[in-house]
Amino acid sequence: MEIDLKKPILDKNDKLAAELRERFAKNHVYVVDLLASPGSGKTSTILATIEALRDEFNIGVIEGDIASNVDAKKISNQGIPAVQINTGGACHLEADMIKRAVDVLDLERLDLIIIENVGNLVCPTDFDLGENAKIMILSVPEGDDKPLKYPGVFQVSQAVILNKTDTLPVFNFDTEAFEKAVHELNPHAPIFPIAATKGTGVDDWADWLAERIRQA
Amino acid sequence: MEIDLKKPILDKNDKLAAELRERFAKNHVYVVDLLASPGSGKTSTILATIEALRDEFNIGVIEGDIASNVDAKKISNQGIPAVQINTGGACHLEADMIKRAVDVLDLERLDLIIIENVGNLVCPTDFDLGENAKIMILSVPEGDDKPLKYPGVFQVSQAVILNKTDTLPVFNFDTEAFEKAVHELNPHAPIFPIAATKGTGVDDWADWLAERIRQA
Repeated sequence: MEIDLKKPILDKNDKLAAELRERFAKNHVYVVDLLASPGSGKTSTILATIEALRDEFNIGVIEGDIASNVDAKKISNQGIPAVQINTGGACHLEADMIKRAVDVLDLERLDLIIIENVGNLVCPTDFDLGENAKIMILSVPEGDDKPLKYPGVFQVSQAVILNKTDTLPVFNFDTEAFEKAVHELNPHAPIFPIAATKGTGVDDWADWLAERIRQA
Repeated sequence: MEIDLKKPILDKNDKLAAELRERFAKNHVYVVDLLASPGSGKTSTILATIEALRDEFNIGVIEGDIASNVDAKKISNQGIPAVQINTGGACHLEADMIKRAVDVLDLERLDLIIIENVGNLVCPTDFDLGENAKIMILSVPEGDDKPLKYPGVFQVSQAVILNKTDTLPVFNFDTEAFEKAVHELNPHAPIFPIAATKGTGVDDWADWLAERIRQA
C-alpha cells in the first residue's frame, strides 16, 4: 500500500482557498498569484505594474519569502500596503498563510492584490491560494528551454510575462522557439515581453490585467 | 497533535544516502550535488568542468529534471556517460532516484559523478544524496540579494559558484555585498566567479574540485 502524503495537505489547502476566493469575490478584489524562479524580476514587475495601475486601482501586495523582508520594504516605500510572509524554509505559499496576510489588509478598500510567491518554478504550481489567476514570469537569462523542463508552471498560468527583454542582445535566447513551446503547453496564454526595470512593454500587460480587475 | 510528514521521508532518504555514500567511498568516486535556480547555467558549468578535468579523471553525470532529456543529451554529446532522471513533477532529487541512476553507471571506472539537481534553490537542500559536497551556483542576473532570501542553500553548500560574470556590466550586481552576505551565512565556502560558456574563471573551481577528487 502506498500512502499519498500530499493529498490530505492539498485537500485542506483547497478548502481554505475556496473560502478565500469567496471572500475576494464578495469584496470585488482581483487576486494574482505571481510565480517565477529566484531573481527573475518578480518584485520589479510588481513595482512596474503598480506604477501603471495605481491611478485607477487600489493595490495591495503579499510578499512570500523564505526569509527577509527586503521585498515588502520596496513595495511599502511606494506607499502601497504590503504584508511580508516568511515561510521559514517552506518552498511555496499555502492558503492558510494567505488567510493570515489577508486579515491584515483592508479588503473592502482594495481592487487588486498581487501575491509574490516564493521563487520556485515547481512547488507553488500545486497550491491554490484563492487567486483569480496564476501568472508566471520567465526572464531572458534563464533560457528559452524552460518550458520543456518546467512544463507544469507554464500550464497553470493564465498569462506568461517574459522579463528582462532588454538583455536579449546579451543572451542566446530564441524568442520564437520559446513562444512556440509555451503555446504547445498552453495555447491560450498571452505572452507579454517586458523589461520591468525600464518600463518597456508594461502597458500591454497592465491593460490585460486592468480589464480583469474591472470585472472582479 | 501534529504529524510531521517530512520526517519519515527524510529518515528513509538519509538511510539510503548513507548506503550510497559508503558505495561511492568504496569505489573512490567523488560525488557533487549541484544546486541552483532554473537557468543559472548548471549544465554549462558541468560542460566547462568536464572540459577542464576530463584529461585527468573519468567523469559521469546524473541529470535531474522534472521533464525532458535535453541536458543529458548535451553531456552525452561530449562522450561522457549521462543518466537522465525525470522526477515527473517532484521538485528535488531523492536518494532512491540516485540509487537507480548509479546502478546504470560503471562506478569502478569513475572518479567523479556530478549530479545536476532540479532547478530549485529550496527543496533540494534538505535531501542527502550520498554526495561528498553540495555545490551551488548563483548567476549574476538573479541578483546579489539572494543569500538573504534563500539562506538555506548557501549554508549547506561547500562552495559557491557565481556564474555569468560576463554579464556583470549589464546587471546591477554588487559583488562585494554578495560575498559579504555569503560569508555571513557560510564563512568557509570559497566563491568562484566564472563565465561557464566563455570558460572564464573555470580553472580555480576545477583545481579546488580536482584536489578533492584525488583524495576520494
